[in-house]
Amino acid sequence: MDQDQLRDVLERVARGAASTDQAAAELTALLRHMPFEDLGFARVDHHRAIRQGLPEVVFGAGKTPEQVAAIAERIVAAGQPLLVTRTDEAAYAAVAQVVSDAQFHRVAHIISRGARAAAGAGTILVAAAGTSDLPVAEEARVSAELLGNEVDALYDVGVAGLHRLLAERERIERARVIIAVAGMEGALPSVIGGLVGVPVIAVPTSVGYGASFGGLAALLGMLNSCAAGVAVVNIDNGFGAAAVASLINHPP
Amino acid sequence: MDQDQLRDVLERVARGAASTDQAAAELTALLRHMPFEDLGFARVDHHRAIRQGLPEVVFGAGKTPEQVAAIAERIVAAGQPLLVTRTDEAAYAAVAQVVSDAQFHRVAHIISRGARAAAGAGTILVAAAGTSDLPVAEEARVSAELLGNEVDALYDVGVAGLHRLLAERERIERARVIIAVAGMEGALPSVIGGLVGVPVIAVPTSVGYGASFGGLAALLGMLNSCAAGVAVVNIDNGFGAAAVASLINHPP
Amino acid sequence: MDQDQLRDVLERVARGAASTDQAAAELTALLRHMPFEDLGFARVDHHRAIRQGLPEVVFGAGKTPEQVAAIAERIVAAGQPLLVTRTDEAAYAAVAQVVSDAQFHRVAHIISRGARAAAGAGTILVAAAGTSDLPVAEEARVSAELLGNEVDALYDVGVAGLHRLLAERERIERARVIIAVAGMEGALPSVIGGLVGVPVIAVPTSVGYGASFGGLAALLGMLNSCAAGVAVVNIDNGFGAAAVASLINHPP
Amino acid sequence: MDQDQLRDVLERVARGAASTDQAAAELTALLRHMPFEDLGFARVDHHRAIRQGLPEVVFGAGKTPEQVAAIAERIVAAGQPLLVTRTDEAAYAAVAQVVSDAQFHRVAHIISRGARAAAGAGTILVAAAGTSDLPVAEEARVSAELLGNEVDALYDVGVAGLHRLLAERERIERARVIIAVAGMEGALPSVIGGLVGVPVIAVPTSVGYGASFGGLAALLGMLNSCAAGVAVVNIDNGFGAAAVASLINHPP
Amino acid sequence: MDQDQLRDVLERVARGAASTDQAAAELTALLRHMPFEDLGFARVDHHRAIRQGLPEVVFGAGKTPEQVAAIAERIVAAGQPLLVTRTDEAAYAAVAQVVSDAQFHRVAHIISRGARAAAGAGTILVAAAGTSDLPVAEEARVSAELLGNEVDALYDVGVAGLHRLLAERERIERARVIIAVAGMEGALPSVIGGLVGVPVIAVPTSVGYGASFGGLAALLGMLNSCAAGVAVVNIDNGFGAAAVASLINHPP
Amino acid sequence: MDQDQLRDVLERVARGAASTDQAAAELTALLRHMPFEDLGFARVDHHRAIRQGLPEVVFGAGKTPEQVAAIAERIVAAGQPLLVTRTDEAAYAAVAQVVSDAQFHRVAHIISRGARAAAGAGTILVAAAGTSDLPVAEEARVSAELLGNEVDALYDVGVAGLHRLLAERERIERARVIIAVAGMEGALPSVIGGLVGVPVIAVPTSVGYGASFGGLAALLGMLNSCAAGVAVVNIDNGFGAAAVASLINHPP
Amino acid sequence: MDQDQLRDVLERVARGAASTDQAAAELTALLRHMPFEDLGFARVDHHRAIRQGLPEVVFGAGKTPEQVAAIAERIVAAGQPLLVTRTDEAAYAAVAQVVSDAQFHRVAHIISRGARAAAGAGTILVAAAGTSDLPVAEEARVSAELLGNEVDALYDVGVAGLHRLLAERERIERARVIIAVAGMEGALPSVIGGLVGVPVIAVPTSVGYGASFGGLAALLGMLNSCAAGVAVVNIDNGFGAAAVASLINHPP
Amino acid sequence: MDQDQLRDVLERVARGAASTDQAAAELTALLRHMPFEDLGFARVDHHRAIRQGLPEVVFGAGKTPEQVAAIAERIVAAGQPLLVTRTDEAAYAAVAQVVSDAQFHRVAHIISRGARAAAGAGTILVAAAGTSDLPVAEEARVSAELLGNEVDALYDVGVAGLHRLLAERERIERARVIIAVAGMEGALPSVIGGLVGVPVIAVPTSVGYGASFGGLAALLGMLNSCAAGVAVVNIDNGFGAAAVASLINHPP
Repeated sequence: MDQDQLRDVLERVARGAASTDQAAAELTALLRHMPFEDLGFARVDHHRAIRQGLPEVVFGAGKTPEQVAAIAERIVAAGQPLLVTRTDEAAYAAVAQVVSDAQFHRVAHIISRGARAAAGAGTILVAAAGTSDLPVAEEARVSAELLGNEVDALYDVGVAGLHRLLAERERIERARVIIAVAGMEGALPSVIGGLVGVPVIAVPTSVGYGASFGGLAALLGMLNSCAAGVAVVNIDNGFGAAAVASLINHPP
Repeated sequence: MDQDQLRDVLERVARGAASTDQAAAELTALLRHMPFEDLGFARVDHHRAIRQGLPEVVFGAGKTPEQVAAIAERIVAAGQPLLVTRTDEAAYAAVAQVVSDAQFHRVAHIISRGARAAAGAGTILVAAAGTSDLPVAEEARVSAELLGNEVDALYDVGVAGLHRLLAERERIERARVIIAVAGMEGALPSVIGGLVGVPVIAVPTSVGYGASFGGLAALLGMLNSCAAGVAVVNIDNGFGAAAVASLINHPP
Repeated sequence: MDQDQLRDVLERVARGAASTDQAAAELTALLRHMPFEDLGFARVDHHRAIRQGLPEVVFGAGKTPEQVAAIAERIVAAGQPLLVTRTDEAAYAAVAQVVSDAQFHRVAHIISRGARAAAGAGTILVAAAGTSDLPVAEEARVSAELLGNEVDALYDVGVAGLHRLLAERERIERARVIIAVAGMEGALPSVIGGLVGVPVIAVPTSVGYGASFGGLAALLGMLNSCAAGVAVVNIDNGFGAAAVASLINHPP
Repeated sequence: MDQDQLRDVLERVARGAASTDQAAAELTALLRHMPFEDLGFARVDHHRAIRQGLPEVVFGAGKTPEQVAAIAERIVAAGQPLLVTRTDEAAYAAVAQVVSDAQFHRVAHIISRGARAAAGAGTILVAAAGTSDLPVAEEARVSAELLGNEVDALYDVGVAGLHRLLAERERIERARVIIAVAGMEGALPSVIGGLVGVPVIAVPTSVGYGASFGGLAALLGMLNSCAAGVAVVNIDNGFGAAAVASLINHPP
Repeated sequence: MDQDQLRDVLERVARGAASTDQAAAELTALLRHMPFEDLGFARVDHHRAIRQGLPEVVFGAGKTPEQVAAIAERIVAAGQPLLVTRTDEAAYAAVAQVVSDAQFHRVAHIISRGARAAAGAGTILVAAAGTSDLPVAEEARVSAELLGNEVDALYDVGVAGLHRLLAERERIERARVIIAVAGMEGALPSVIGGLVGVPVIAVPTSVGYGASFGGLAALLGMLNSCAAGVAVVNIDNGFGAAAVASLINHPP
Repeated sequence: MDQDQLRDVLERVARGAASTDQAAAELTALLRHMPFEDLGFARVDHHRAIRQGLPEVVFGAGKTPEQVAAIAERIVAAGQPLLVTRTDEAAYAAVAQVVSDAQFHRVAHIISRGARAAAGAGTILVAAAGTSDLPVAEEARVSAELLGNEVDALYDVGVAGLHRLLAERERIERARVIIAVAGMEGALPSVIGGLVGVPVIAVPTSVGYGASFGGLAALLGMLNSCAAGVAVVNIDNGFGAAAVASLINHPP
Repeated sequence: MDQDQLRDVLERVARGAASTDQAAAELTALLRHMPFEDLGFARVDHHRAIRQGLPEVVFGAGKTPEQVAAIAERIVAAGQPLLVTRTDEAAYAAVAQVVSDAQFHRVAHIISRGARAAAGAGTILVAAAGTSDLPVAEEARVSAELLGNEVDALYDVGVAGLHRLLAERERIERARVIIAVAGMEGALPSVIGGLVGVPVIAVPTSVGYGASFGGLAALLGMLNSCAAGVAVVNIDNGFGAAAVASLINHPP
Repeated sequence: MDQDQLRDVLERVARGAASTDQAAAELTALLRHMPFEDLGFARVDHHRAIRQGLPEVVFGAGKTPEQVAAIAERIVAAGQPLLVTRTDEAAYAAVAQVVSDAQFHRVAHIISRGARAAAGAGTILVAAAGTSDLPVAEEARVSAELLGNEVDALYDVGVAGLHRLLAERERIERARVIIAVAGMEGALPSVIGGLVGVPVIAVPTSVGYGASFGGLAALLGMLNSCAAGVAVVNIDNGFGAAAVASLINHPP
């Protein structure tokens, strides 16, 4: 309910075009009216882009292909850009039935249609420590592009071979915000954080074995980073990092 | 070593003012010369502000008052702003001997002298869930101000009484970046993250008991936030959140 | 052994119809006689409904279809309502052989036959944060209905889009007891608990990834809820929540 | 804002006693006006009893005596009953300065003034496994009484000496809801839950040593209870259990 | 209630010396009458020795000196041997007021009076890995003696110097049951278990630092022992090991 | 090397039948000669029964069928009883090729041939809380029988229906040692431990879900048992419990 | 950039063969020039052997067969020895297409081609506690050989049968460095560490079940080893142990 | 027992100077005679230096000053070098009474007397990330010197300011083995490990707060190091690292 709607009701009351009872009912209804659509198993939130600067994004894991397709259809019908993460071929097949021009980003496990125009203030750099971190790094890269950002990517620059990282110092220093993706001991964000003067969004990955405990080691390492300017998202959460980075890159 | 120094050496070689041996030695020395000062137990990094957008900040915990005072003296002597976190009365007493106009922020456990002028793009809002989260929230607030930001603070707005938070929606929506501080279940960043279109830096606190396990519950809650746009720093790390928020608020 | 049986034995002794030896033996036997049936691998407890207000419920996980069917048959033969949780198609096929009118609730993974008439004092509301929490929410909803309750369900009302929840405030306020189901950070019970004056039974789900650690994050979040009036059951334990809620809704 | 206030504004608009601008401002203000009082470091919530069925309760841990006293004074000034948990002698001394007739419950660590009249549907039974669990059990007992319940207490009835528990079966069966407090392996709620047909609110305590890990063993034990009808609150959270039990005992 | 008491009641009914009502009441009372004494904060269990082969043992931690003394007095008054574990000088002072001949075992933190005569089948050997494990080893040794066992003790025989252990092989092979006490990696029970043909009761201690995590490392090591014949008690639970060992050493 | 062999060498030296060099070599060899057989990938220990009171038992998990069969063949060839735990149909097929009369215990996942004659002092009782605990309970029962014990079994006697357990009190009291198997909260050993005067070997199982964390909840519950006389083995370690129980039941 | 290249540039400047601008550019380029090859998804580090004493080793897990083959081809083309760990048949098939003489070590899960000549100072002994630890032990053994070491192997020498270990004391004492591989309680390194005067590199394995928690028990045991001279690598990290041992065995 | 002693006995038997009985007894005694001294609470191991290349080192934590002094006295009396770790002023006062020329290293918490002459193959470098890691780094440095090594130390070279570390590359490359000490995320060993070709012994410290969990974050980071050539010791275990490094630096 915005101020215009409020005034409209009040003005109708003032000029006798609405009784107070009727106005009370209208106002109550307006307060209740919410910009989402109820599919029974899901409530699609069409105004999120306005409220939050990010479109409604569908978390694909744990949803059936049918559910994903039904939600996708409603989002597209409402003229919103489509972004489904943690999804797979089967869901894509179902979505493609109802959204014929949807795209599937295989490595990133993302379905999309349309994208925000890149209006960010600068570039987002996605840096990944190892080849095995690629799926998470790609989830971040593709998401950031779809959210309207110019993105640069720098892969296999882990700290055990510092020269590979230092050789790219110029690209690193060009970014407005950096997404640093790493598994194992997760030291990449600390080293990058010590080199630059922009925020570093750290993404621990579940890459590793033994005492990496599914990414816990990298997560703890990143949370305890001795470099100032590092903040952390959930293990393997490439999209989450992209969302934060995009908000940083799009001043309100 | 900047390009000017490099050219100066090379030009002296070109005009015979320096032998190649001498130049090789000079260049090697320049490459080695690093803008830090070695106190034996510490290497004070005077150029961090240039490199990283943040001044060198002294982590007070685990250092003796004498060590803190010696480092503080060198930082001030180098014309840098002083910011010591996780410190106490005893360290302040030692610092005050050598830096007579240092200030002590009691609740925030911070010693400071001077501050960057507020040149941030917007306002940083520090929101805290409960009265017991104040020391961490104040560490964030004071740090953010010293790092050159305009800061607003909103305390005791935990999610169990949503109306207290929603009543301040206007102040919340005004911020360029929000620091959300909470202990117990740590749900505040999720709720705020759903309301705004700017990055939310979540700070779990060790406030709570029993199965809060020293802030672990809040930390996990924040990492698993269902709201996009939330990134997390270490438990009780008010300064860390301020550093990230300040970098967001100061485009490079 | 009730008082009537005790008096009957004593009266027979008093009137010489039973010797003291015989009476001692009878009393001992009565004390031993327990209202369960021993199937070798299971002891079916036919009187639980009387003793506990809940019928004997079969936990299907880890039992073979044959074991489930054998237990189901005995329960039905004893005139008890049948409720098997955490079960599957294979077990249903076996049960259907011996209990022809058994029903299978696919999403809830429940086999049932018959149900207690709804005699609860009010309504149980099952609220779930996301679409992926549906299997657990449905286990709770179906169980609560079979245990004799009127149930309302409200799905996809997670705290990152508060308006979806607040739009249903009326239905929320109508409940006698609320079951709040959520994965990820598990903040839903805290927010609901702050809105209502009835008990909230919180069910953490294993929905999520990374640092959700199989539902641990949601579990800890709920245990540390800053809202009074929240109690928690095991991760994914929809039936457990329904059992507690049903006891609340059925005053003794 | 209730319906009466809304109608009053609308009627004044209808009869010309208020302009639409003025009415819009008033309505906006009413929507903003929230029944709490801002002390700077705390927002005292005077209407919680109406909204939630429980008065505002002050969590004393982590607050200074001065903060506790200031909050207590405002609560009493607003005519609300006072209940401070996790508090101590020092806070009591400060509170007694401003609320002369406040009481201190030493074992329970509670400060109170006034109490709701006991209007619960039945009795709350507080059962504790060992003598060392007394502080938590007393926090639950005193809280439940102050929240307007008739309370019975049964201490030192741990499962290693079942006869002590079974001897009190009659008192156990009389309760409308049972709070079961136990440390170590936390088996008491399971055993009680198997005996009765009312909800059991389980409180794990940090009593124990070694692999009890501060109450974790008891917490996990209670969450995994094989008895239906058991829900759990945080470790040592006697007040939390009392709040849930009181809501169960006071139908809306 | 034994068979004699049952027959006595029945015989009085048979011969008319008691009415059935009176008998029903008497029997009910007998069933309820339990051999414990209710001190309000504790229920002293005087018949535990008969039922369980072990006397009632008082766990001193978390009890006030006054509570320990009151319980001790009742136990001694009932002619039972006294054994208080995890206690201290203050409690001993209080106990000594009411039980003048009580003894204090300083290293073992035990108060005792009287002891069961040593009627065990063989010897209990208490082996400890290091000097720092002595308090726990002594708690086991003193407890085992008070429970009526002949005890041998072998200290500082950790596995990093195998020859110290192997040199005592004869004493090790003489035991009926061995209590193996160790902190750090807790390997002693595995090595002893591989040498002998009697049960080894392993006691992890909280001795160690860093990743010993309060005895967790030793506990896990002992639970995963590759030697058959090893069972484990709680961290630092010297008494618990003595209780198990004593039951092994006293065939029923 | 036994005393006889030692004396024989020395006597030959004394009477000149062996030179000192030859004797030194012989003694060194004897000291080195160990009663195991080296298969390359395994060292089969034929004298374990003598040294340890238990035959060499093959842990089947992680070994190929070929490895299991090769080891089984050597054990049988050496006239030892065969006991393979944690094994499967495939391994049994391979063993049956070389040990034609080997038996496969399907539920217990054990391959055996021969058994020690039952010479134990009394009976071992295996009690299991639920039907789902059967595989572990059966591993314990079958192992105990093969190790030469008379075994009684009592299944589905969990503490949520105490009457099922108490009805079998006589069988419980007849045992020399009790193996108590339980998952979920693992309370069975505590309740049994409070009823009897013999050692209880507790076996936590991985039965359960959510916060049972693969048996951790039951394990911690058992380690923290408030009943004296309980010792614990690893999660699901039915054989381990049988080994300890058998050593208790066979005095040396 | 070595001193020769530096001097060469300077000398050209001195004799006018290069302008200062040109020299500045050349020096900057040299500083940037790093000895790796960028495949897009990977940066192959050809000079690692020079810099680090170890060749670039490919971690096969999480890489596609195509990625492994592409990297392998580049390494071989650069004349480097090839060592791929944590790999499988599928990757080997792909590698064999491009590196026809590559070898597959099945138990060790290693692909290799060529090996460093054995120039180590002494022998590396790989000792493993049980047959199930073989894959990890073999990864260590094969890796150590490929890294240019003479290796001895001693399997199935767990501490529960000490005589099997002590019988091989001579081989143990011959080593320059020992790799001790063990699962379960992981006590082998402690016992070996107490016998020898050389470094012991401990490798915990995930062999075990229940409370071994995927090797955590062994890891903690080894970290808490009471023997001096033991250092630990990650769970199942046979290659990591070989790398450390090889560096110990090859003085710089 | 060495070969000489063995031959001596045998020769006396051969020449009739000893009966076989007497010889059997002597040999048995020799086998039993172990080079340690039993103080009751401790077994002092005088021959460890011979057996293990390291002198017996006294772990001071958990021992009384009297125990430390008694052990120290015996070690010195046996002509061994004295090294007590994790000790304090009080223990030093007690030791100084009996070993007048003992030294106390305050920061390192070490008492020593005498030292092995430095006969190591090269230099041990102790590198520490921050000023707060000094006590652990000094424990390593002092221990390594007392164990006969030349030691270099490099403090405050954490990875967030890489230039501080890279500036000392020459000193880093000179070492035969490096001890890398770090708290927080523990990334120092990975970065150093990528620069050098010698073994890196990583020591996690408990420096940090929040999610460092007492050094767990650093420990996991180091175990998961992506650099080959890194092995890890227990949290804060400076001495342990020195012991391993010394064995590496002293070829057998």
